[in-house]
Amino acid sequence: MKALVYQGPGKKALEDRPMPTIQASTDAIVRILKTTICGTDLHILKGDVPTCTPGRILGHEGVGVVETAGSDVTTLSSGNHVLISCITSCSKCEYCRKGMYSHCVNGGWVLGHKIDGTQAEYVRIPYADTSLYKIPQDVDEEAAVMLSDIFPTGFECGVLNGKVKPGDTVAIVGAGPIGLATLMTAQFYAPTRIIMIDVDDNRLQVAKRLGATDVFNDSDGLAVSKVMSLTGGIGVDAAIEAVGIPSTFVMCQELVAPGGVIANIGVHGLKADLHLEKLWDRNITITTRLVDTVSTPMLLKTVVSKKINPKDLITHRFTLENILSAYDTFGNAASTQALKVIINT
Amino acid sequence: MKALVYQGPGKKALEDRPMPTIQASTDAIVRILKTTICGTDLHILKGDVPTCTPGRILGHEGVGVVETAGSDVTTLSSGNHVLISCITSCSKCEYCRKGMYSHCVNGGWVLGHKIDGTQAEYVRIPYADTSLYKIPQDVDEEAAVMLSDIFPTGFECGVLNGKVKPGDTVAIVGAGPIGLATLMTAQFYAPTRIIMIDVDDNRLQVAKRLGATDVFNDSDGLAVSKVMSLTGGIGVDAAIEAVGIPSTFVMCQELVAPGGVIANIGVHGLKADLHLEKLWDRNITITTRLVDTVSTPMLLKTVVSKKINPKDLITHRFTLENILSAYDTFGNAASTQALKVIINT
Amino acid sequence: MKALVYQGPGKKALEDRPMPTIQASTDAIVRILKTTICGTDLHILKGDVPTCTPGRILGHEGVGVVETAGSDVTTLSSGNHVLISCITSCSKCEYCRKGMYSHCVNGGWVLGHKIDGTQAEYVRIPYADTSLYKIPQDVDEEAAVMLSDIFPTGFECGVLNGKVKPGDTVAIVGAGPIGLATLMTAQFYAPTRIIMIDVDDNRLQVAKRLGATDVFNDSDGLAVSKVMSLTGGIGVDAAIEAVGIPSTFVMCQELVAPGGVIANIGVHGLKADLHLEKLWDRNITITTRLVDTVSTPMLLKTVVSKKINPKDLITHRFTLENILSAYDTFGNAASTQALKVIINT
Amino acid sequence: MKALVYQGPGKKALEDRPMPTIQASTDAIVRILKTTICGTDLHILKGDVPTCTPGRILGHEGVGVVETAGSDVTTLSSGNHVLISCITSCSKCEYCRKGMYSHCVNGGWVLGHKIDGTQAEYVRIPYADTSLYKIPQDVDEEAAVMLSDIFPTGFECGVLNGKVKPGDTVAIVGAGPIGLATLMTAQFYAPTRIIMIDVDDNRLQVAKRLGATDVFNDSDGLAVSKVMSLTGGIGVDAAIEAVGIPSTFVMCQELVAPGGVIANIGVHGLKADLHLEKLWDRNITITTRLVDTVSTPMLLKTVVSKKINPKDLITHRFTLENILSAYDTFGNAASTQALKVIINT
Repeated sequence: MKALVYQGPGKKALEDRPMPTIQASTDAIVRILKTTICGTDLHILKGDVPTCTPGRILGHEGVGVVETAGSDVTTLSSGNHVLISCITSCSKCEYCRKGMYSHCVNGGWVLGHKIDGTQAEYVRIPYADTSLYKIPQDVDEEAAVMLSDIFPTGFECGVLNGKVKPGDTVAIVGAGPIGLATLMTAQFYAPTRIIMIDVDDNRLQVAKRLGATDVFNDSDGLAVSKVMSLTGGIGVDAAIEAVGIPSTFVMCQELVAPGGVIANIGVHGLKADLHLEKLWDRNITITTRLVDTVSTPMLLKTVVSKKINPKDLITHRFTLENILSAYDTFGNAASTQALKVIINT
Repeated sequence: MKALVYQGPGKKALEDRPMPTIQASTDAIVRILKTTICGTDLHILKGDVPTCTPGRILGHEGVGVVETAGSDVTTLSSGNHVLISCITSCSKCEYCRKGMYSHCVNGGWVLGHKIDGTQAEYVRIPYADTSLYKIPQDVDEEAAVMLSDIFPTGFECGVLNGKVKPGDTVAIVGAGPIGLATLMTAQFYAPTRIIMIDVDDNRLQVAKRLGATDVFNDSDGLAVSKVMSLTGGIGVDAAIEAVGIPSTFVMCQELVAPGGVIANIGVHGLKADLHLEKLWDRNITITTRLVDTVSTPMLLKTVVSKKINPKDLITHRFTLENILSAYDTFGNAASTQALKVIINT
Repeated sequence: MKALVYQGPGKKALEDRPMPTIQASTDAIVRILKTTICGTDLHILKGDVPTCTPGRILGHEGVGVVETAGSDVTTLSSGNHVLISCITSCSKCEYCRKGMYSHCVNGGWVLGHKIDGTQAEYVRIPYADTSLYKIPQDVDEEAAVMLSDIFPTGFECGVLNGKVKPGDTVAIVGAGPIGLATLMTAQFYAPTRIIMIDVDDNRLQVAKRLGATDVFNDSDGLAVSKVMSLTGGIGVDAAIEAVGIPSTFVMCQELVAPGGVIANIGVHGLKADLHLEKLWDRNITITTRLVDTVSTPMLLKTVVSKKINPKDLITHRFTLENILSAYDTFGNAASTQALKVIINT
Repeated sequence: MKALVYQGPGKKALEDRPMPTIQASTDAIVRILKTTICGTDLHILKGDVPTCTPGRILGHEGVGVVETAGSDVTTLSSGNHVLISCITSCSKCEYCRKGMYSHCVNGGWVLGHKIDGTQAEYVRIPYADTSLYKIPQDVDEEAAVMLSDIFPTGFECGVLNGKVKPGDTVAIVGAGPIGLATLMTAQFYAPTRIIMIDVDDNRLQVAKRLGATDVFNDSDGLAVSKVMSLTGGIGVDAAIEAVGIPSTFVMCQELVAPGGVIANIGVHGLKADLHLEKLWDRNITITTRLVDTVSTPMLLKTVVSKKINPKDLITHRFTLENILSAYDTFGNAASTQALKVIINT
């Protein structure tokens, strides 16, 4: 089968690879229909993720059809239409039992990382019963791909951890796909102001269209003072970091009101300054989280009922044959205005 | 009257000062019976708290007797035995209405800071109805002094923010009075392991006596690895910072388990490194808080019912005449083994 | 001044009464601009509320202008445009301190009940600072009247107590003004299905227009079975009782799913059967609540930001001179299709 | 093997039965070391539980040794010392995923009910990985038997649902084994008053020894008025029902303070009156729950650390040969003063 393979820092290729096979009775083999590319895939390609070794098929998002199911898979069978979760959950370990699937001792984020992933014609999914989700009839396949990772990530790490409540003022720093998924799902809680901060005007325009009440381009370094002016000098109830660099994390510290929350979503490669000399007495909460995907069933319901339309984030479509072009387009988002790209296999 | 007055960085004196008087109808004048010295008073004396100006009577803890009550004080009257809260709460502002008295726009931490404090024969308390607490009959006066600040601080900023639960493993970094108050009140929630870390063996012995299950002297820099060994390499559910310097805050980042909490109590004068490159995917929560003293009525109940004995933290007693000696003793805790000192007026 | 006075069971009249005056330094006198009639006023008139004695001016909702403020009112002054809360809160008692203003030992529901109310040209409001809310510039006065009682009641007793969450299925039994306010504010939390049950088709049509996904007229006694069919036999996450009679409360017990909540809003005059023989092992929660009005500031924000339009519930308008007609119209809602009526003074 | 078999209402016998065998790859066969008798077993024998049919081996509590483990059991193997949970959890269904194992669609309470139970030499346990718990080295076997059902039941249905907090006043109605387990685990949260109500003086004496601050024998019908007098007429923060009859549930309604909780533990066979005419405006919460046993791992930690000693509830010991005598003793608790009886196999 065709598969996009990581060949070491800076190198990738579309290779011919053998079909995956059932290795444990709880596995399923899924024929991929649609997949996508994540910012994390770019990180791997830069060599930033040493736990991902050359030879790995990338990709941790996608929808497909169950081809074969292991003998102990009880809720799925051949032909089922499924959403692949970016997080693999054994359901039995201590972390899974408390809903922290991200830290599953037998799974977690393994797809396209420690085991072969979804940018291929077929993929093996361990613990299929609790790592795949049947796609309800009314859910569009492309919409479902967005629920493999970015929507649960924006919702769990940003909105839930940010404790967004009716009437809140929320700032989201970073209007990339994750920041925009956060924006869309934040509206589940009726905050009365959602401020989006980025340095890309196109993305801010998208944000405005998707429900941001205020958008600020921080190219001039004035976003913080604009937010302060907007909030009467108090700051925001929730400052959500969706970039992953020290300066945006520090910006969140300047944005947050006393009693507020800084919810980190960004993947950070560096430490950041925490200004405890200013924050120690401000009654704030800072959270980090690798998505657990516990909210996937709920998010599917909101897609069925049209509370959100995840397809709004899809800008480009490619075939698996052309996945290298898809990487180019996605990797040059500033010029291509790409948000999420769909790969049809 | 006699009062301990801050005279600028490094300078203090016992002065004769005029008696305080009612300035607003919601004020009360309290005759001080017992007060104490807080680490914050030492910070002021070092010149670290610029919002406290020379001429200020220090002190934000104490018990006394209501001498006179303003015309709109409805729940207290002359002769009532009261506990003075370190936090002044107007009860009406947005912050007070949501239980965040620390950020009361008309009060907060003002005593011995922005208005004259309790290290004197008399003190004026604004918003007396909601800033003083009647002392129940069975509560010892010295015990009550401990409830002005350190017990609510340890409990709210450490135990509540640290989400301490039955069965938890808790580490408290810093075995000073606040850390020890945290240790005592953490036991309200039946954690099965409370690890105390300090560099002072005497304080660690006190911790052991007051309920710590394990104590580590980090003079050798091995405390983190000892905790890791004790917890099977996982770390602690709650790491509580009760020192206030960057290195102990960083230590807490090394101690905390995935899904755990770092609850900061320490007063920090410097920023600290936050290792987001290690923590971004660990599902942790970090909290800061200036004590709100919302727990004071509950803490009084636990003293009445003998769940805690706050007097266990009192090591020395002085008269107001000798308050300068009290400061010497408290300021040289390493050699005097002082924890809390009582000043009888 | 003119005022609508309760004269004993079944009797009311528009009387001339003396202007109210300041009785405590925390009082304010408010000149009423608009008021309304509540189902509770009808209960009083039937003689169902013995704590309300003849001679009482009725009404606990309204907006107005501060005429005079007592000497200890600090946040309001003459000329301020204010929303009158149906709940009077002293802010200082134990209940107020924990956000349970409904049980304020110095206030609670007193207006138009134990002290004279708002169906008059002027009203005295005790504890004005914490019982009145300044109306933001962009909020329509009629919308604000709806926030005196029914919107906080629907939101706090129904939506918050019902723990409505994104993706939930919610059933609201009773499509009167309170039920409809519950329906509107439930949408703050993005439930994917809101089922409205009543026996009045007109009210169900209004419900449909205001966001109900499904409406069932229970005149045929089949509503429960229809909901069960709709939910695959499982029932609803939250069953909200907004009628106040035993049969609708029992219906909620039949509607609720394992793990779900029954949130009672209705004012009950009789006991009801609780089928513990069916519910003891179903992990359900039942709540009751007299509105605390803690959500009033938040609700004002959602009106400003147009998340809700409370005026949607207003069907009729009268002058104070014609308040007896207003009572007739409101009291015969089945034929007049009245929801909320506005009285302009 | 020997097994205690239900033979229809009023009839039971110690029979010879074939050894259980592995039926699914996730099953384990456990050799029973110790089991016990539950009040529910008596209910079954009375014919009150029609879902339990004649021929069933009774018992849902016990400790044992894994004899054989199915091929997909991954965390246990032959020879492991295990605690058998009264609730069987598949770990994969929607209810298990949200921690509501009691409603597991593939398990729940099945042992000694819908499948053969633990009052036998061997038992088959489905979903062994998530329905058995390894017993830590320091935990006494008899103590562990108490954690199969009564301690998680008292803790989850009584203490957690009752939201017991430091400083609370708690009333527990019913001082049988479950009520006493509630009493012991309520102390994890440092309530300052725990009132125990029963009609059996012996049980109340045990309660006193195990930490009750006040005990009232309600034979005179005065318990409610005594509690009211003790609480200044306000009532209790949590009223926990541990009997299962209408009158004690009604008593809880009389005991609960405004804002408080009624947590039902009792197994009810009849409906009860709910006095909504008194409670609708009291801001109370009522909960029901079949134990989920999510707290079992935590409870094991508290036994290891000696926070509780579950053996305090064991009054009698028998061999499996004499299990009929054990039933007699347990069934005549008033005269035998039996609490929990241990059956050694």
